[in-house]
Amino acid sequence: MIKYFKYFLASILILTGFNAYSQDVDSAVIRNLYSEALTSNISYENLRELCKNIGGRLTGSKHANDAIKFIEGKLKGMNLDNVYLQELKVRNWERGEKEVANAMTKKGRVNFNVCALGISVGTGDKGLTGKVIEVKSWEELKNLGKENIEGRIVFFSRAADQKGYTTGYGYGSSVDQRVKGAVESARYGAIGVIVRSATVAYDGYPHTGVMRYNDSLTKIPAIGISTKESDILSGLLKEDKDLEFYFRTTCHQDADVKSFNVIGEIKGSEFPEEVIVVGGHVDSWDLGEGAHDDGTGIVQSMEVLRLFQSIGIKPKHTIRFVGFMDEEIDQKGGRKYADAVKNKNEKHLAAIESDGGGFTPHGFSFEASDAQIEKLKSFQKYLEPYWMHLFVKGGSGVDVGFLKESGAALIGLIVDSQRYFDYHHSANDVFENVNRREMQLGSASMAALIYLIDKYGI
Amino acid sequence: MIKYFKYFLASILILTGFNAYSQDVDSAVIRNLYSEALTSNISYENLRELCKNIGGRLTGSKHANDAIKFIEGKLKGMNLDNVYLQELKVRNWERGEKEVANAMTKKGRVNFNVCALGISVGTGDKGLTGKVIEVKSWEELKNLGKENIEGRIVFFSRAADQKGYTTGYGYGSSVDQRVKGAVESARYGAIGVIVRSATVAYDGYPHTGVMRYNDSLTKIPAIGISTKESDILSGLLKEDKDLEFYFRTTCHQDADVKSFNVIGEIKGSEFPEEVIVVGGHVDSWDLGEGAHDDGTGIVQSMEVLRLFQSIGIKPKHTIRFVGFMDEEIDQKGGRKYADAVKNKNEKHLAAIESDGGGFTPHGFSFEASDAQIEKLKSFQKYLEPYWMHLFVKGGSGVDVGFLKESGAALIGLIVDSQRYFDYHHSANDVFENVNRREMQLGSASMAALIYLIDKYGI
Repeated sequence: MIKYFKYFLASILILTGFNAYSQDVDSAVIRNLYSEALTSNISYENLRELCKNIGGRLTGSKHANDAIKFIEGKLKGMNLDNVYLQELKVRNWERGEKEVANAMTKKGRVNFNVCALGISVGTGDKGLTGKVIEVKSWEELKNLGKENIEGRIVFFSRAADQKGYTTGYGYGSSVDQRVKGAVESARYGAIGVIVRSATVAYDGYPHTGVMRYNDSLTKIPAIGISTKESDILSGLLKEDKDLEFYFRTTCHQDADVKSFNVIGEIKGSEFPEEVIVVGGHVDSWDLGEGAHDDGTGIVQSMEVLRLFQSIGIKPKHTIRFVGFMDEEIDQKGGRKYADAVKNKNEKHLAAIESDGGGFTPHGFSFEASDAQIEKLKSFQKYLEPYWMHLFVKGGSGVDVGFLKESGAALIGLIVDSQRYFDYHHSANDVFENVNRREMQLGSASMAALIYLIDKYGI
Repeated sequence: MIKYFKYFLASILILTGFNAYSQDVDSAVIRNLYSEALTSNISYENLRELCKNIGGRLTGSKHANDAIKFIEGKLKGMNLDNVYLQELKVRNWERGEKEVANAMTKKGRVNFNVCALGISVGTGDKGLTGKVIEVKSWEELKNLGKENIEGRIVFFSRAADQKGYTTGYGYGSSVDQRVKGAVESARYGAIGVIVRSATVAYDGYPHTGVMRYNDSLTKIPAIGISTKESDILSGLLKEDKDLEFYFRTTCHQDADVKSFNVIGEIKGSEFPEEVIVVGGHVDSWDLGEGAHDDGTGIVQSMEVLRLFQSIGIKPKHTIRFVGFMDEEIDQKGGRKYADAVKNKNEKHLAAIESDGGGFTPHGFSFEASDAQIEKLKSFQKYLEPYWMHLFVKGGSGVDVGFLKESGAALIGLIVDSQRYFDYHHSANDVFENVNRREMQLGSASMAALIYLIDKYGI
């Protein structure tokens, strides 16, 4: 397209309200927040450093500690009123050596690119070999029973449902296999599980993510396989249901280690004891760089504070960045922060989390009282010029979710989800897959909402 | 994110209306259109073939002819009521050999990756050498005047404005340099122009696109340079304003050649003489594969017909796919189609164009009468569950724009624009940068709107 493009979009700009509230001081402030976000590279460069200089930040790892230091250093360079760490204990699970997997078919060996699922036990150095039984549902597993499953590897191959508008729907339709597959298979004597990745993407990346064991059952090794290779394995099993599958994982868990939430804040000028939190999680899975999950949430939340400083907003309430640790495994960071709030009896107005990836935002989801939601919805008109049309009741975020008792309005940034599971928990979650402008629209949207909450209360 | 993700998104699904109109037959039909689109690979595979087997489809080129045959073949395989070509004459400009450019600085030669701008004249085999004068505005150019410009190469280095919400705003703020740079510089005796690419992306891709000459002035060669290399050249000029710049382009224009619009239709069951058009443009620039511009518009528009067939909608009016030729240069295809409609006195209800890239759609822009717009806006409620919130008055599309006299409602699909100019007119506009689900949401959205227009009229 070329010819009418300028006019076409100019007309949309006007009609969708770029100037609709321009008389209004608040609209002008919000316009400035977006302009500053869209023209700045600082936050994107922070993400580049976090992803490229540190990379994946598995809870309990050296990289996670490096990330804490990196974020603390950046916060200290921002001329904030307060920067500190909040200590906690976290699990220390390590992936070990690169996983190996293959199927011995009548035509020869077929290799697979697999990954150990988060917190799973390893196979031991020699690996594990067995026949494979493929299932798509819990009922199928139950019907097969011990006689068909004992001594075998269970292969969970149910594909994510593509029909939902958000890809979280597809994720939700398949992630139960990853979380419960090992436990449910162990009930019938399985020796291991292979799980099709919980994603709507069709490619060669295996996705990791946390799974759970039941202490009363044998803990069996569990691996993820990409959607494409899941189909390849299904095809091989159709040709030869008795093929032998081998896999080797050396993941293991050591004693808990010390870790931290990272916190930085601008003190409120009128109500310094009343807090509005904005945050994301510092930890990530280890296969990629934790770019969309949740590097973007971290740098966007830091950017909210920078945007306030940059355009000279002096908040009445304390605006606090929180980089939560351990969201992916045990949520120790979110729990610790909420406990501290309770112990100090600290008042929180609201807590916003960005943890859906650095994609174009389209609104907020509110876990709050009806009165709070009514107030929050009254702010929608200021953000509609930026295509923020969803101000809805719903879940917020894993980490801020623990603040429910505090009475704060818990808020999740709603973003376009279409590409999220192309990256989520895989080696494909890298800096290059984050678009600067999409990410910065999220920073500005959160800053704008916090500006309104700070000014008008909720 | 993991823990609450499923529940978080499930609640959004419900609240944003997945079931809000489920009692309603129309909502169920539209739900089926989206489900079919999101679960099918056909359209995405069509795009893969168009991009990978044919590639860039410059108007008048062999590749453009290959694309016409490819699309005609696909349409003929779809069991439509009518498939035909509409002949036209188009310009035949060729890029020639890979462009060469470098700056001779005091420290040695610095090479640049440049591209001839569309329809520009070549430098001749030996290339062109001259001193460079950098400008950012037309006023600056005018003030420099003949004494500073004559015999020199003018370098237009104004960056795209990042502040607008849509990236079309940034494009519109800088593309005048590409279109008018050569003409305005020739007035003062310049020998060539270098133009910073009209994009909000910051990378190493030069972007092409059409420029214009004025027959009463000397036609001087014109090249595009990437945003990063534009800054490098500016830096070199700061160090040495008298550096010599060399570039060589062998682009040339031959006699006009025959080409075609490609058309396929489902005849209306009640009003076969009344037409609803859906289309995109077949041609593209030659540097990339014309994936987002406008391969996606083509395969989405074909997909609309397939979706109707797939879920068994028998339209009352004729639904016509039009693949327009020559959008990028002289819009001969759009003009030809509109002339034919006028000559046949054919009634058109509406014409929808997708030419903003295969990104997540958020609404439609209407170039129509107030009464038509009112009716079209009444359909918004059916599409809001799919985050289609912008039903606005505004421009439509370059090709359907020529149908204004026909009285049809002209409609443009509004999509997320944030990544569009990362690809537009550059070697980066390739299949891999199109996400299947984002693109298919556009197919389904257009199908849904056409279903409603067909059923309720406008």
